[in-house]
Amino acid sequence: MAAIDYPAPIKALIANLKQLPGVGPKSAERIAVWLIQHGRELTGSLSSALSVAGETVGECEVCGFFSSAGVECQICESPGREEDSLCVIEHPTDVLLLERSGAFKGHYHVLRGKISPLDNVGPDDLRIAELLDRLKKGNFKEAILALSADVEGEATANYLADVLSDFDGVAVTRLAHGISVGGGLESADELTLLRALEGRIGMK
Amino acid sequence: MAAIDYPAPIKALIANLKQLPGVGPKSAERIAVWLIQHGRELTGSLSSALSVAGETVGECEVCGFFSSAGVECQICESPGREEDSLCVIEHPTDVLLLERSGAFKGHYHVLRGKISPLDNVGPDDLRIAELLDRLKKGNFKEAILALSADVEGEATANYLADVLSDFDGVAVTRLAHGISVGGGLESADELTLLRALEGRIGMK
Repeated sequence: MAAIDYPAPIKALIANLKQLPGVGPKSAERIAVWLIQHGRELTGSLSSALSVAGETVGECEVCGFFSSAGVECQICESPGREEDSLCVIEHPTDVLLLERSGAFKGHYHVLRGKISPLDNVGPDDLRIAELLDRLKKGNFKEAILALSADVEGEATANYLADVLSDFDGVAVTRLAHGISVGGGLESADELTLLRALEGRIGMK
Repeated sequence: MAAIDYPAPIKALIANLKQLPGVGPKSAERIAVWLIQHGRELTGSLSSALSVAGETVGECEVCGFFSSAGVECQICESPGREEDSLCVIEHPTDVLLLERSGAFKGHYHVLRGKISPLDNVGPDDLRIAELLDRLKKGNFKEAILALSADVEGEATANYLADVLSDFDGVAVTRLAHGISVGGGLESADELTLLRALEGRIGMK
């Protein structure tokens, strides 16, 4: 007698859900059964939201923030932003954290990570060439390094300060130590991010 | 200047994920960004698993367990199972919990809930008519009520024992109080379920 188990489509769904961050085997099973019991409308809606997001969301070639196919990145196309200050960040999600603090009105540049020899991430793996290109062509007067306050973030900031020392018209600053040391931008609340932006400190 | 936010497809995905059980707004955001950053292959795979599961998984008309379109329910089509005992359960997922205990080889009947006046669930909302029909037509010698050991489960068991008192050839039993009182079948481990099945007690 064959062992009784979920039908194959449910097992496939559980296997897919189990891969998501923060979703273990038990949660995946609970979510899958819940979805099935809530019917076709819900699975269809989530399924199409996933496929639309997967197919249309990309990365802005200029700043590295999320962009939707056919629509320019919201920040690069926005006419009201300050054209002379550039905020250098690790992840596209950091844009939203900084925007919510309300303290920055300029442009962003996503590095897509930080220098981390243990994870095999060197300067060439980050969007540093694109950063230099933007600073050469644009009219930026300040580059704010809004990186994590951990060892890799500090190393990346120091590396960038060194590389950017050739740009005479561009001041290089970093966030004040308002953000909690050892953590990423995610762990700071909006007020802390505001203080950190206001108290930024010159590096050259 | 418009507020900067995720592109619409990511927002739609977050809104969908937030509905899932155990997934809050923060987790939904983390999962959505993680999916987007892991690319089209992963979103496509989860999207199609969802749509296949949503479209093909249904409910077996006989026992109420999950069935896949075009494929009969695994339990009803299985030739090796005992034809004379029927285990009455609340949820289709209870089938797997009991199967894993290895103590039961008969057939199942899913009620799709329990009598619960506070939630507006009465006997007519459960698959009780289908149960009586199966007992009339089949050759069952025993109906095991494997319901939750909480107030609603006990009330449902008593109601069923009363209704089933007319079936002379069918013994009605309930699970022994090996399962932890106050909880559902989910909270019992496999051994506890095995003991509970072995120690079942006559009700009429």
